[in-house]
Amino acid sequence: MSDPRLTSLAAALPDTVPFVGPEAQERAAKAAFRARLGANESPFGPSPRAVEAMARAAQDAWMYPDPENHELRQSLAQHHGIGADHIVVGAGIDGLLGSTVRLLVDRGDAVVTSDGAYPTFNYHVAGFGGVLHKVTYRDDAEDLDALLDKAVEMDAKLIYLSNPDNPMGSWHDADSIAAFIDRIPETCVLVLDEAYAECSAARSAPAWAPEHPNVIRFRTFSKAYGMAGARIGYAVGPKSLIGAFGKVRNHFGVSRIAQTGALAALADTDYLDEVREMIAHSVERISAIGRANGLQPLPTATNFVTLECGRDGDFARRVLTSLAERGVFIRMPGVAPLDRCIRISCGPERDMVTLKQALPIALEMATKK
Amino acid sequence: MSDPRLTSLAAALPDTVPFVGPEAQERAAKAAFRARLGANESPFGPSPRAVEAMARAAQDAWMYPDPENHELRQSLAQHHGIGADHIVVGAGIDGLLGSTVRLLVDRGDAVVTSDGAYPTFNYHVAGFGGVLHKVTYRDDAEDLDALLDKAVEMDAKLIYLSNPDNPMGSWHDADSIAAFIDRIPETCVLVLDEAYAECSAARSAPAWAPEHPNVIRFRTFSKAYGMAGARIGYAVGPKSLIGAFGKVRNHFGVSRIAQTGALAALADTDYLDEVREMIAHSVERISAIGRANGLQPLPTATNFVTLECGRDGDFARRVLTSLAERGVFIRMPGVAPLDRCIRISCGPERDMVTLKQALPIALEMATKK
Repeated sequence: MSDPRLTSLAAALPDTVPFVGPEAQERAAKAAFRARLGANESPFGPSPRAVEAMARAAQDAWMYPDPENHELRQSLAQHHGIGADHIVVGAGIDGLLGSTVRLLVDRGDAVVTSDGAYPTFNYHVAGFGGVLHKVTYRDDAEDLDALLDKAVEMDAKLIYLSNPDNPMGSWHDADSIAAFIDRIPETCVLVLDEAYAECSAARSAPAWAPEHPNVIRFRTFSKAYGMAGARIGYAVGPKSLIGAFGKVRNHFGVSRIAQTGALAALADTDYLDEVREMIAHSVERISAIGRANGLQPLPTATNFVTLECGRDGDFARRVLTSLAERGVFIRMPGVAPLDRCIRISCGPERDMVTLKQALPIALEMATKK
Repeated sequence: MSDPRLTSLAAALPDTVPFVGPEAQERAAKAAFRARLGANESPFGPSPRAVEAMARAAQDAWMYPDPENHELRQSLAQHHGIGADHIVVGAGIDGLLGSTVRLLVDRGDAVVTSDGAYPTFNYHVAGFGGVLHKVTYRDDAEDLDALLDKAVEMDAKLIYLSNPDNPMGSWHDADSIAAFIDRIPETCVLVLDEAYAECSAARSAPAWAPEHPNVIRFRTFSKAYGMAGARIGYAVGPKSLIGAFGKVRNHFGVSRIAQTGALAALADTDYLDEVREMIAHSVERISAIGRANGLQPLPTATNFVTLECGRDGDFARRVLTSLAERGVFIRMPGVAPLDRCIRISCGPERDMVTLKQALPIALEMATKK
């Protein structure tokens, strides 16, 4: 039942949502998950200094947040060696992607992405009336040449690329990305989603060149920094584009608690190093558990491992469902041929033990059905 | 410097922002405010139970928030005696107003509000290409008849009304609002901003009738609940319209900490009663301080007092500036004739003492200039 007074654009939008949360599954199953390994959250948690800062900030929650996110932008500027005018902070990458599309994509404008890449980006493009053109992954990685060719062919306003990639975990090295950026038409902007950039030692991120007119890069405190629940991320781009966010963004949209926590998390570089080690260890654990059960782990530069189940999407979906029934929340790629895989987020040893126990049973159930 | 690739709509938007935060003023002045009485925050703070809940939730900040805000919507539904399908939760009223405009206002559509009412609503209307038509306040209150006449004349998609009103503190009683609602054309939706509804015992809010097709009502945890920094509010309306928010909203946009805090705040009805008493006491204090200095307090059903300075807008602006120089942050109405007034938020006794000391000096300075 759609409201008759919606704009024609809004009325035509589907009711489907990009993701159903694990809480909805828990409510339906009337049981809590024992291991939450589906949303590439960081069960290792935020820096203890960030937790302490957020807990203290709860007292001050009566004050509106600084709409300019001044302190955090200054710290990020120093951290990355770029000017604060190149940085806009938002309530996670999701919201920033929405503002980016709103600023740059008019109704009917072409946008290029990969078939199977981030659904929430597609949601925003549809939401502002853009027209999506998808290219296929090549060798389980986003295909830079195909993205560029399609963008030229369609005169696209935006190209979306996640590097490292979600949901496959693959990545292009920094030099390849830099070369790719040099080839982008000047009428097009690369939306470079680097949500997983801090998760590993892989050199996937090119040097910052924030005045480059054709690139806007996205970072988040939701992944390696372990603060998905606080909702805070940022975008880095040319001043003219970053400044334009001020025309449309929700100025008081980032919580004061999140700003305070992100400041503390950013400063705690030792903890980030520890998290990176814990991720690397968990990648090994998930890979070993997968292999022991006949599943092939794909290389990853993220905080998750994508495992080939060796059969089709229906089989992988049955594995996912059977894992959920055993209390293990995971997700998987949405389209063929990527959907022959399941995707498991890194987590501490207690989660790995739960996974190790549940996976063989889930595979057996999936095979029987 | 605007980016050449912006949509025509985005390129045409002004660079002005709805509000400059007090932090920006503090940075410019290189001094912190001693009393923060400008943004109608609640210096009485959130419920201690909400503070405790948020502090605890900081540990769990690694988990994404429930995108359905299920628990809070269930609690709100029970609290108000309405169905949860009539409620959408967002990162404060600001964000929800943005989604409302986006859903209902197409480029060129007419929208009616009062000249001097909430700038952030106007910001969203402009941001989505709507055309604002403003009517003047009458007797320092929003003029229901004028709003309705203008909406009919312009075939408006939306009417904005804040009740109780910001920035004047005035209010229409529940029966007047109910009668007003009955007269709204069926092609028009009333955006009823009730941010201040919980601040006083004034009967300004009509009974809930959430299936009424022509009304969407907005509530927040930023005012009486004292959680402005957490960014959480909600809208109540017909299922068809509330459901449509799912097509455009940032599904993971409300922090887990805010959801947890709001649940605790809603349950602590004793504390809300206490806050209401503290607000009433502070209204008396501000009124008395104003009168002692020759300023006339206007009646209020909010957590602020609007004081007539008895001269023009330039004088009131000088008072505001002089108060800021004395460490007291306040705001004031933006347009004549409302701008003969200053607006002072309620606060605890320490803030009242600061105000009492600063006001006579500020008035003297403003008079001299």
